[in-house]
Amino acid sequence: MIERFLKGDRLIAARVISMVEDEMPEGQDILDLLYGRVGAAHRIGITGPPGAGKSTIVDQMALRLRKEDIKIGIIAADPSSPFTGGAFLGDRIRMADIATDEAVFIRSLATRGNSGGLPRTAEDICDVLDAFGKDALIIETAGVGQTELEIIHAADTAVVVLVPESGDSIQAMKAGLMEIGDVFCINKSDREGADRAASILEEALELKGNVAWKPPVLKTVATEGAGIDELIDRVRDHRKYLAEHGLVERKRKERIESKILTAVRERILNPVLEEVKRDLSSKVEKVYLTEITPTQAVEEILQGLDL
Amino acid sequence: MIERFLKGDRLIAARVISMVEDEMPEGQDILDLLYGRVGAAHRIGITGPPGAGKSTIVDQMALRLRKEDIKIGIIAADPSSPFTGGAFLGDRIRMADIATDEAVFIRSLATRGNSGGLPRTAEDICDVLDAFGKDALIIETAGVGQTELEIIHAADTAVVVLVPESGDSIQAMKAGLMEIGDVFCINKSDREGADRAASILEEALELKGNVAWKPPVLKTVATEGAGIDELIDRVRDHRKYLAEHGLVERKRKERIESKILTAVRERILNPVLEEVKRDLSSKVEKVYLTEITPTQAVEEILQGLDL
Repeated sequence: MIERFLKGDRLIAARVISMVEDEMPEGQDILDLLYGRVGAAHRIGITGPPGAGKSTIVDQMALRLRKEDIKIGIIAADPSSPFTGGAFLGDRIRMADIATDEAVFIRSLATRGNSGGLPRTAEDICDVLDAFGKDALIIETAGVGQTELEIIHAADTAVVVLVPESGDSIQAMKAGLMEIGDVFCINKSDREGADRAASILEEALELKGNVAWKPPVLKTVATEGAGIDELIDRVRDHRKYLAEHGLVERKRKERIESKILTAVRERILNPVLEEVKRDLSSKVEKVYLTEITPTQAVEEILQGLDL
Repeated sequence: MIERFLKGDRLIAARVISMVEDEMPEGQDILDLLYGRVGAAHRIGITGPPGAGKSTIVDQMALRLRKEDIKIGIIAADPSSPFTGGAFLGDRIRMADIATDEAVFIRSLATRGNSGGLPRTAEDICDVLDAFGKDALIIETAGVGQTELEIIHAADTAVVVLVPESGDSIQAMKAGLMEIGDVFCINKSDREGADRAASILEEALELKGNVAWKPPVLKTVATEGAGIDELIDRVRDHRKYLAEHGLVERKRKERIESKILTAVRERILNPVLEEVKRDLSSKVEKVYLTEITPTQAVEEILQGLDL
């Protein structure tokens, strides 16, 4: 299996990703074997409010990068929908232009209600595609929230996509996007207010003071491909900056650390949680009837465990 | 302290909330003592993409509810900003109209980078304000993401706020809002496309099939207060529906269960995590140099612990 993976078998890569996503132990075993090959890909996170045109930006970036024969992985973090019983957008459907390109690997990340696990799973999938030989990984989030910020934070370069409408920049500040963005992009900038939005953003970024990397603010019209070349240039500038300051290494070590910590946590908790859950509903009932307090319920459960 | 809390001392309530937010053990002790008084408040979650006008909706709802002398707590889940060193919007600043009303308790929830903990903290604060005698708790999220959906999921009634612009309903589906909404509200509906947006939404909701509660779709212009009365009526209808189907009780039990589980997890993990972290950076280094695999690092760490 590893052999076929390293030969570039896409079906095997997809299967490994599914194993990782489903948290099968074999998935981690394979990742272990591949871990020496992880680390070369540039991880680019794309985030921004719904409707900003993130998917189109990703699509256009992928098209340009493909012209330079750069091998790409795209991870779209779409929430699952009970309507369809799975991810609302299936793999490959959206990115019609590039979906047929063998060198582009597209994967929708189904969120399975486990918020803590989502950033972790996204990173594991990035590791798989990194080991698979992709040069660039583009990670797109569906919404803007804490979990999404965490997913993007694990990328090397974070691109924040906004629209020109007044208030969007202010909303970006409220949503914590100002802090996380390495490159800002006012998309749909053929609409009114683009210049103003860009200068509001630049002013706000000035407040960050004397930092080594000053996040550039670009204007794009992704549907027409306008501004995409410059966006890619700035994203590459940022990668260069990271490399020159030893930050690629640091980010990779942070990712390793968080991976180890998550696994240690699970290994400690999983054996006892089964046992805890057996007794849980009777304790909930007692707390509900105010016979015991929540803390007493916790104490009683812990006493029942062999720790 | 409990005595003054039960007498309605706002400063004490604020201090208890801070204790809970800072995860001080005293906070849980006090919550334990108050737990018998938790359960009466109607918890209303407000979510939607940035810029939809959620804050104005909350402000207007609070104003109307106050006219009926209903005691209100407002919890705004704003991300913290390194620019200001704290929550980007301070307590009370935003809601100028109602901030001076003694019966309205407004609290900004600073997210401290701990995504797993945010929904938990929001619930604890709701419990404090519930015990404090508030009749209605309005919880507003800043963005739309996994964490925010979890926060809202813990509410009794979830209101999803959208704008008329085409595509917003589709974005709502992508962001998982369709599944979570009990009441939908097209705000800024004096703008073009409100009727169309409402019918797209209604059609999509039809797909849910034969469900006992059919989420209504309303149009509001919150800045003018238009549609707010109806919004409150529908929110109350939903509470009635929950009560008639035993769902208020079920939701409360789910909240108790998640509270107990989180505490059990922490009690098991916290004593060992300190120890784990001492040895972590040397293991990270080894994995980085591919001397060991991540799984080997986990094994070595677990072996070093007294379990």
